[in-house]
Amino acid sequence: MSILIESLGLAAGTLTTFSFLPQVIKIWRTQDVSAISLMMYAAFCFGVFLWLLFGIAIGSISLILTNGITFLFAASILYLKITIER
Amino acid sequence: MSILIESLGLAAGTLTTFSFLPQVIKIWRTQDVSAISLMMYAAFCFGVFLWLLFGIAIGSISLILTNGITFLFAASILYLKITIER
Repeated sequence: MSILIESLGLAAGTLTTFSFLPQVIKIWRTQDVSAISLMMYAAFCFGVFLWLLFGIAIGSISLILTNGITFLFAASILYLKITIER
Repeated sequence: MSILIESLGLAAGTLTTFSFLPQVIKIWRTQDVSAISLMMYAAFCFGVFLWLLFGIAIGSISLILTNGITFLFAASILYLKITIER
């Protein structure tokens, strides 16, 4: 695969992975989760966890890394959603 | 690749793609976007758009389909965030 295409994938993966960080920080600061969908983050966390297993199964370091980090962020949002609303 | 691993990937892709739909519906119903991070959805939409270009570049139907649908959902959330808060 060409360097241009690999760079595109790397930029895409970095953006989609770290995009969840500002959402974690926003909730942490404001303690406001009213508009956050519980069902979205429950399904998303489960899905990213399956991507992580998929990455492990095919032995892909980039899939394991990006989905591992994304899972940590998304699970934090899910945890904050549940604990703040309780 | 084994059918088990391919099924894992298919389940993962379906979950992460359609997880955004309950968030779109929740915002549409409540018109509440206070807790939604603008920076998250701006970065995420851009990232998923790059994944879509990556999918087109390598000619992968599954990448084009999942990222195409995810982009529609995430862009809807971004649009609602911007228009409701204006």
